[in-house]
Amino acid sequence: MNELRDEFLSRELHEECGIFGIYNNSDAASLSYYGLHALQHRGQEAAGIAACDTGGEINCYKGKGLLAEVFNNEIIATLPGRHAIGHVRYSTADANQIENVQPIMVRSHTASFAVAHNGQIVNAPELRHELEKRGSIFQGVSDSELLAHMIQVEEGSFEECIVKACRRFEGAFAFVILTNKAIYAVRDKNGLRPVSIAKLPEGGYCVSSETCAYDIVAGEYVRDLKAGEIVKIDDEGIHSYQYTDDTQYKMCAMEYIYFARPDSTIDGINVHTARRLSGRALAKREDTEADIVIGVPDSSTSAAIGFAEEIGLPYEIGLIKNRYVGRTFIQPTQKQRERGVRMKLSAVSSIVKGKRVFMIDDSIVRGTTSKRIVQLLKEAGATEVHVRICSAPLISPCFYGVDTSTYDELISARLTHDELCEFIGADSLRFMEVDEMGESFGTKNLCTACFDGQYCTKLFSYGEILESEKNK
Amino acid sequence: MNELRDEFLSRELHEECGIFGIYNNSDAASLSYYGLHALQHRGQEAAGIAACDTGGEINCYKGKGLLAEVFNNEIIATLPGRHAIGHVRYSTADANQIENVQPIMVRSHTASFAVAHNGQIVNAPELRHELEKRGSIFQGVSDSELLAHMIQVEEGSFEECIVKACRRFEGAFAFVILTNKAIYAVRDKNGLRPVSIAKLPEGGYCVSSETCAYDIVAGEYVRDLKAGEIVKIDDEGIHSYQYTDDTQYKMCAMEYIYFARPDSTIDGINVHTARRLSGRALAKREDTEADIVIGVPDSSTSAAIGFAEEIGLPYEIGLIKNRYVGRTFIQPTQKQRERGVRMKLSAVSSIVKGKRVFMIDDSIVRGTTSKRIVQLLKEAGATEVHVRICSAPLISPCFYGVDTSTYDELISARLTHDELCEFIGADSLRFMEVDEMGESFGTKNLCTACFDGQYCTKLFSYGEILESEKNK
Amino acid sequence: MNELRDEFLSRELHEECGIFGIYNNSDAASLSYYGLHALQHRGQEAAGIAACDTGGEINCYKGKGLLAEVFNNEIIATLPGRHAIGHVRYSTADANQIENVQPIMVRSHTASFAVAHNGQIVNAPELRHELEKRGSIFQGVSDSELLAHMIQVEEGSFEECIVKACRRFEGAFAFVILTNKAIYAVRDKNGLRPVSIAKLPEGGYCVSSETCAYDIVAGEYVRDLKAGEIVKIDDEGIHSYQYTDDTQYKMCAMEYIYFARPDSTIDGINVHTARRLSGRALAKREDTEADIVIGVPDSSTSAAIGFAEEIGLPYEIGLIKNRYVGRTFIQPTQKQRERGVRMKLSAVSSIVKGKRVFMIDDSIVRGTTSKRIVQLLKEAGATEVHVRICSAPLISPCFYGVDTSTYDELISARLTHDELCEFIGADSLRFMEVDEMGESFGTKNLCTACFDGQYCTKLFSYGEILESEKNK
Amino acid sequence: MNELRDEFLSRELHEECGIFGIYNNSDAASLSYYGLHALQHRGQEAAGIAACDTGGEINCYKGKGLLAEVFNNEIIATLPGRHAIGHVRYSTADANQIENVQPIMVRSHTASFAVAHNGQIVNAPELRHELEKRGSIFQGVSDSELLAHMIQVEEGSFEECIVKACRRFEGAFAFVILTNKAIYAVRDKNGLRPVSIAKLPEGGYCVSSETCAYDIVAGEYVRDLKAGEIVKIDDEGIHSYQYTDDTQYKMCAMEYIYFARPDSTIDGINVHTARRLSGRALAKREDTEADIVIGVPDSSTSAAIGFAEEIGLPYEIGLIKNRYVGRTFIQPTQKQRERGVRMKLSAVSSIVKGKRVFMIDDSIVRGTTSKRIVQLLKEAGATEVHVRICSAPLISPCFYGVDTSTYDELISARLTHDELCEFIGADSLRFMEVDEMGESFGTKNLCTACFDGQYCTKLFSYGEILESEKNK
Repeated sequence: MNELRDEFLSRELHEECGIFGIYNNSDAASLSYYGLHALQHRGQEAAGIAACDTGGEINCYKGKGLLAEVFNNEIIATLPGRHAIGHVRYSTADANQIENVQPIMVRSHTASFAVAHNGQIVNAPELRHELEKRGSIFQGVSDSELLAHMIQVEEGSFEECIVKACRRFEGAFAFVILTNKAIYAVRDKNGLRPVSIAKLPEGGYCVSSETCAYDIVAGEYVRDLKAGEIVKIDDEGIHSYQYTDDTQYKMCAMEYIYFARPDSTIDGINVHTARRLSGRALAKREDTEADIVIGVPDSSTSAAIGFAEEIGLPYEIGLIKNRYVGRTFIQPTQKQRERGVRMKLSAVSSIVKGKRVFMIDDSIVRGTTSKRIVQLLKEAGATEVHVRICSAPLISPCFYGVDTSTYDELISARLTHDELCEFIGADSLRFMEVDEMGESFGTKNLCTACFDGQYCTKLFSYGEILESEKNK
Repeated sequence: MNELRDEFLSRELHEECGIFGIYNNSDAASLSYYGLHALQHRGQEAAGIAACDTGGEINCYKGKGLLAEVFNNEIIATLPGRHAIGHVRYSTADANQIENVQPIMVRSHTASFAVAHNGQIVNAPELRHELEKRGSIFQGVSDSELLAHMIQVEEGSFEECIVKACRRFEGAFAFVILTNKAIYAVRDKNGLRPVSIAKLPEGGYCVSSETCAYDIVAGEYVRDLKAGEIVKIDDEGIHSYQYTDDTQYKMCAMEYIYFARPDSTIDGINVHTARRLSGRALAKREDTEADIVIGVPDSSTSAAIGFAEEIGLPYEIGLIKNRYVGRTFIQPTQKQRERGVRMKLSAVSSIVKGKRVFMIDDSIVRGTTSKRIVQLLKEAGATEVHVRICSAPLISPCFYGVDTSTYDELISARLTHDELCEFIGADSLRFMEVDEMGESFGTKNLCTACFDGQYCTKLFSYGEILESEKNK
Repeated sequence: MNELRDEFLSRELHEECGIFGIYNNSDAASLSYYGLHALQHRGQEAAGIAACDTGGEINCYKGKGLLAEVFNNEIIATLPGRHAIGHVRYSTADANQIENVQPIMVRSHTASFAVAHNGQIVNAPELRHELEKRGSIFQGVSDSELLAHMIQVEEGSFEECIVKACRRFEGAFAFVILTNKAIYAVRDKNGLRPVSIAKLPEGGYCVSSETCAYDIVAGEYVRDLKAGEIVKIDDEGIHSYQYTDDTQYKMCAMEYIYFARPDSTIDGINVHTARRLSGRALAKREDTEADIVIGVPDSSTSAAIGFAEEIGLPYEIGLIKNRYVGRTFIQPTQKQRERGVRMKLSAVSSIVKGKRVFMIDDSIVRGTTSKRIVQLLKEAGATEVHVRICSAPLISPCFYGVDTSTYDELISARLTHDELCEFIGADSLRFMEVDEMGESFGTKNLCTACFDGQYCTKLFSYGEILESEKNK
Repeated sequence: MNELRDEFLSRELHEECGIFGIYNNSDAASLSYYGLHALQHRGQEAAGIAACDTGGEINCYKGKGLLAEVFNNEIIATLPGRHAIGHVRYSTADANQIENVQPIMVRSHTASFAVAHNGQIVNAPELRHELEKRGSIFQGVSDSELLAHMIQVEEGSFEECIVKACRRFEGAFAFVILTNKAIYAVRDKNGLRPVSIAKLPEGGYCVSSETCAYDIVAGEYVRDLKAGEIVKIDDEGIHSYQYTDDTQYKMCAMEYIYFARPDSTIDGINVHTARRLSGRALAKREDTEADIVIGVPDSSTSAAIGFAEEIGLPYEIGLIKNRYVGRTFIQPTQKQRERGVRMKLSAVSSIVKGKRVFMIDDSIVRGTTSKRIVQLLKEAGATEVHVRICSAPLISPCFYGVDTSTYDELISARLTHDELCEFIGADSLRFMEVDEMGESFGTKNLCTACFDGQYCTKLFSYGEILESEKNK
C-alpha cells in the first residue's frame, strides 16, 4: 500500500479549481469564458471549455496558462453550441501534465460527455486501483477522469450512473458534467466545495463555483446546491436528485477566509462580510495598544476594516500591492529573489513611520511571507508590528482540495506560538480560536479540519500517511 | 501653420511616462528593470533600457509591451555596465511607432548618449521645424529625439549643450540622459513632472520619476530635483546646474490625484496622504445624508477613506477589482463590449443593497466609466448613489503630458453640472473647488491648468488650437 | 451502424505519423528530439516525447506544432532517463484535439506505460465499441489510446497483453511502447508501415519509422521489423515475438513514392533509388518528343533524374522551391489565395522558355496543384507541357493511414484520363501501370490498394462506406 | 582615426539585404509583403514596410524576425495606400539593434519620406563624421539613415537632393525611397548591387532587388537600373536621372555564385544558367576520374548539373537537405553542436557508397562546413571525395555588402591550396580561376574584389585597415 501512496499522494493533493457551466444560451462558450474569467483567482495554470448543441457533438479546447492565454476569439468560435462547461485549474508542478487539464472528454459511441471538477476525492487511489483491475486506464491523475470512469462502468441511465458513482466517493467535490442533452452539477455530501445555480435573462441557466461569476453573464442567483445533491439542467428546467441522505453540511472555512472572492456569497454568507465580521471578532479580545490598523492586500482588507471598526483605530493603507506583478519573466538570482515580496508589496512609509501597527492577515502557512511583510513595515518605520490572524493556526494537512498537504509545510504545526512570533519578527502575534471563526460569520457548519484535525470524512490511505507523519 | 498643427498635434499630445536611472552599480540594467517595474503604472505600452560602463559603449534594448514582455534574463545580460537609464511608455495608438520607443540612442564618433523623458514640450513643433531647416531629420515624434538634436546642434561641453537646449524648451519635462561618463537628470522650470534622486547602499545613485521605485532597489531618497535644475551624477557625486532662475514651482495636480502610486512622495507630500486629505476636505462641505462610503478602486481608495473618516460613516469595500484583467485577448463583440467594466469591477451586493452610497472617485473625464459604475451599484441594490469627485471638473486640455487633449474629450467642458449628474445617473454629484485641492494637501504650488485653464507656460501653436476649439 | 461510422470515420482516417524510440542512452529525450527532427516530414502538427529510467517514473511532454515549437532545452530537461519514445503527428483539422497528441500515457498502480503509433487500425470502431461496453472510456480517437486499452484489459504478462491486443487488430500499424523496463516496437502482419531498429555506439538501441533518423543519432541500422513481429528491447538486448504467422508482406507503395525521405531505406530498398528507377521505367515507354525533363520539387526530383537519364534528355531545374514558405501568417484573401503555389514554386523562365517540357510528378490527388504548376510553366514560356506521373492513378481511398479518404477527393476516380489531362491543362499526361511500380523498384510486395482497390485486410465498417460511395 | 574605425567597422560591414517597392496599386503593402517574401533569402533577421497614398501620411511598420513573424493581416491593414517600399535585412549580431531595421522614416514638416537599402557605402564613416559636426544625430548605423541625412542637408528639389547625396557616396548601394508623391530607386555607379523595374498589370510599377519577386505580384520585367542611375516613378511614369557619367559596370560576382535565387535574372543573365555554365567550365579542365557528381544543396545544384553534363558522369542527389531546419530552439550542448550539419544535410548512402564523388560547391569561406560535408560523404561510404568549387578562392574582404569582412575569416587567405585540401579532408580540391567565372557566364563586367583584391572604388578608412591586417 505504501508504494501506491507514494506514487499518487505526491500528485493531486494540492488542488483548488473553479468550475462553470451554461445551459441554453446562444453564446455558451463565450459566456463560459467570461464566467471563468471571474473565477480566474481559483486557478491560473490551465483552462478549458467544452461546448455542444442539443444532440450535437461536443467540442473541447484546453491548454496551460491563464484563460486569456489559452483562448482567443478564433478558438471560442470553434466551440459552437448552446451548452458549455469550463474549468480553471491550479496545480502543483508535478501534476501539471496536459492530461490533467480539464474538462476531461469521454468520446463514446453511445454517450459522449465532458467533466470538470473542484475538490479532492480521498478514496481516489482505492477506486482507481479497483478500476484498473477491471481494465480501465488512467491517462492522468485528476478526479474528473475518475468520475468519468465511474460513470462509464456503472449500469443504468446516465443519471443513475452519476448517482452510483457519487455514492462511492468520499471527500470534497463539486463536478459539472456536459452531455449533448443536459448539464449536471454535483456537490459532495458535506458540501465542502461551493457550487450554485443562476438563471440567465433569456431563459437558460448557469452553474458556478462562486456567485461572483453571475454578474458578468447577467445571471440571477437561484440557490446553492445542497450537500449530496445532483442537479440536472435540461430543456425542462432544473431537476434535483439527492444521491444520499447521509449529509452533514460542512463548508470549507478557508473559502471564506482566503479563497473566494469577496463579492461572492457562499451558502447565504457574503465573503466580504464574513471577513469583516471575523476582523471584528478578533478585535473584541484585543488588549494591545497600537495606533493604526493595516491589512495585507488583497485578501485581508475586509478583515482589517472590521478590526479597525471594532477597535476604534484608523484603518490605513499601509501596504500597497503592485498590480503589474503577474508573470515576471526575468528570473531572479538568489540575491534578487528577495526582491520578490518587494515587487508585489510596498510599505507606505508616510503612514507607518513612527506608528504601532496592527497588521491583519488571513492566515500563516509557511511563515516566510509574514516575516517579510513585518520586515517591510519595520524598514518603513513602524515602531511596533502586532500581527493578528483572522483564522486559527493551520496545524493539519487538508485532503479536501487545499494546498496544505504535509505537516512540514505548516509552520504552526512545527513551532510554538512564541517561536512563531519570533520567527516572523512581530512584536506580538495572535490567532483566532477555531470556534470563533464560524461564530464570527454566523455559521456552525464549517469544516475546520486544517485547524483542528477534525476531518468530516474517512481519510483512507491519507489517514495512514497522517499517522506515520505524526509519529516521525 | 495649421497644417503643421494637424500633423503634429495629433500625436505626442497624450503622453505620461516613467523614467529611471542608475549610476555606479554592478547590476545597473537589472536594477533598472526592477525600478521600472515599480513605475509600470506610468506606461504599459513600451519599455527600454540603455546601459554602459565608464568609457564603454552604450547598449540599448527596447520594445513594445509591458516590461516583463520586452525583457528577459538573456536580454538584460546584453546590457552590461555600471550605469543605465530606462523608460516605460504610455502612448496613443497613432504614436505607437517603434521610432518613439525610448531611450533614444545617439551613436556618434565623439559622444554617444541615450535619452528618455516624461512630459511634453509645448514648443516642440517650432523647435523641430527650426532644426529641420538646419538639416536635422526626425525619425519619430518623441521629445527625447528633440532633446538629442538640441544637444547635438549646440556648442560647448555636454553640460553646456544640455543647458542651452533646456533654455529653449517650454513645457513640462523630466529627462534622464546617459553618457559613458555620467547620467543626467533634468526638470523643467515649473517642476511640472516629478523626478528625484536616491542613494544606493553600495555608493551609487539612482533617479526616478517616483520615489516608489527606490524601495525595490534599496535606494535611500535624497531629494527631489528643483525646478529648472540639471543634475549630473558621476564618479565625483552629484553636481547641480540651475539652467534658469526664472522658475515657478507648479507641480501637476493630477500626479497627486491620479497618476502617482500612493506610496510615492512627491516634493515632500505623500500621495496617499494627499488623497486622504482631499477626501477629508471634500467631506467637510457635505450636507447629503447617506449610509456608507465606497471608493472606486484602486486610485480612489485613499480619498474614500479620508471622506469616511471626516463624515463619520463606514468606509466599505463596495466595489471589487478583478486582478486578472490585464490583457484580455478575447475581442468583445459590440454586445460583449459592455462586459468591459464588469470584468474589471464588481459591486458587492451584500454591502450596497438597500444603502445610500457616497461613491468617491478621483475625476471624471469622458463620463462613461462613471456612468457604468453608478449603474453597477444601482443594479447591486444601492438606493442612492451620490458621486463625489476628489478634484475639480476637467474643463481644459492639458499640454503638459497628460492624456486630456481636446475639449470634446472632457465631458465637464461640454455639459452643465446638472446635465452631467443626469448623464452618469447619479442621485447627486459634487466636485472639489480648484483651490480646495492644493489647500487640502497643503501646497499652493500646483498646476491646475486642466481645471481652470491657467497654463503656466506659453502654449505656442497649441494656444491657437485652443482658441479655435473654443470658438467652435 | 451508420451513426457509428459517421462519428468515427470522419476523424482518424487521415493520418500519417512518425515514431521513434531510444533504449539505454544517457541523452534519451534529447536523442529522441533529434531523431524526431529527421522524421518531421511525417507529421508537423503535434509532437511528444515520453522518457524514464529503469524502474523509474515515466514523464511525458507533448503539444501542438512543429517539434521546435513544442520543445526547448528546459522542457527536454524535465524528461530525464535512459529510455524514451517520441512521436510526430499529422492530422486533419477535426482530429486536432490535444487528446490525440501522442505518446498516450497510462498511469497505473501496477504498470505505467506510454504508446505512440503510425498507421490506422481498420477495425478500431468495432474494438472501441466493444471496450466501451466493458466500461472503458476513450478521451480521444487515436489508435494509440485503443492499444493502451487493449493491453490493459488483457490478462498475462505485458508481452502477452501486447500479443493478444495485436492479434485483434486489422490494418496498418507500427507502435512503440515505453515501460520503465523496456521499449517495444510492433509491426502489423502486412508490414504496411515501416519501422526498423538500429544500434547506438554506446550500446543502446533505437527504433524509428525511417532509417534517415539514425544518422543524426549515430545509430547503426540493424534490421527492419518483420511483418507480425513484436520486438522488445531491454537490458538483455533485442527479443523477438512473432504474434502471428498469418503474414503477407505488403509495404505501402506511397511510402516509396511520396512519404519517406529519399535518404531512407525501407526493407532494403533505398527510397531515392526506387524513385529514380520508377522514373527510368516510366521513360522506357515514352514516345512523345520533348526538349527537357523537369521534376516537381522536392519529392519528384529523383524520379525526374531517372526519367532524364533513360530518355537521354537534359534534366533541368525548371521549378524552384522557396525555402521560406513554412507558416505564412498572413491570411490570403480569395484573390491572394492564388498566390499560394507561386509563393512555394517558381518556374525558371530562362530554362523553360520555348521548350517542350516533360514535367515529372509523383502523383495526382485533387489535380489542382498539377493544374497550377502546368500553368506556371506555360506562363514562363514552355511551349508544351507533358505531365508524367511516377505512379498509377489514385482511384481508391486508403484506410491504412494515408490521407486519401474518399472517392470525391481523388480526381482520377472521377474523371477519365482525357478529362483529367484537359483539367490540368497538360499537352499530354501519362501514369505508370500499377504493376510497373513494384517492378521498377524491384519488389512484388507492395500494397497498391489506393491504385487498384485490392485491400490486403478486411475493411469492416469502412468497407460498407466504400460500397455506399461507389453506389452513389 | 583608429578609434573611429573600431567603433564603426565592427558593425555595418556584413550586410546583404533585399529591397522592394510598389507604385500605384490598391494592395501596395500586401504586394510588398509578397514581393519581400520572394526576397526572404536575402535577409531573415528583420523586415519592414512603409506605405502611403499620394499626398497622404506615410505609415511604417518594422520588426525583427522573418517576414511572416513580423507581419500579419492586422498589421498590413495599418499600412494603407497605393505606394509602398519594403526591406528584408541580414545583419550580424552586433548591429541587430532595432534602430537599424528599415525602412528608415524621416518625419518632417515639409517632406516626410522612408528609405531602405542594400549594399555598403564605404565612405559612410567619413560622411557621418562630417554630418555630426553639422549637428546631425545618428540613432543607428545603417546607410539608409545616412542617405536620409544627406538628402535632408542638401538644398534643392527632392530629386536634386538625392542626386547630390549619391554623388558623395562611394561603394555599393541600391536604394528605394518613398515619398507621398513618388518612389525612387537608385543604383551605384558600378552597379554592384542589383535592382530592376517591372510593370504591374493594372498600370502601376514595382522595383526589386531580384526579378524573382515579380512573378508573385504578376509584374512584367521592364529593365535593370543602369549604373549611376536614379529612377523616379510617379503618376507620369518612369523618369530617369543619371547622377554621374563616371560609371563602370561591375556586378558583384557573388550574386551569381551564391546570393541570388536561381530563377532571377540579373542584367540579362539568368542565375541558374550562369551557375550551370560555370559548372560546365569547371568540368572542362577536369582530369580526375570519378563515378558520380553531386552538388551541395541548394545553391550548388545548378553548377553540379552543368559539371555532370560536361564531364559525362551521372548527376546524383547524394546529399539531402532537411526542409524543417529553420529555427531550432533547442540549444545544442557542445557535443550536440556537431549535429548541426547533420540536421541540415544527410548523405544518401545508397548513392555514394563505394563511389568516387565529385562534390560541387559554390565557395569555401571558413572551410568548416566543407570539412563536415566531406566527412558526411565518407561516412556514407564514398571512397573518394573530390571537391570542386565553382568560384575562385576567397582571399580578400568585401566592403560592398557581403559578409566576408576580415582576412581571418577567409581560410583561403590563410592556408595554401594543399593545406586547405587537407583541412577539409578531400582527396582533391580545385577552384575556378578568377577570369573563368565571368567568361563562363558571359560577362566581363564582374566585381571580383573578394577573389583578387581589385576593388572598383576607393576604400577610405577600410583601406587602412586592409593594409594593417596585411602587415600583421
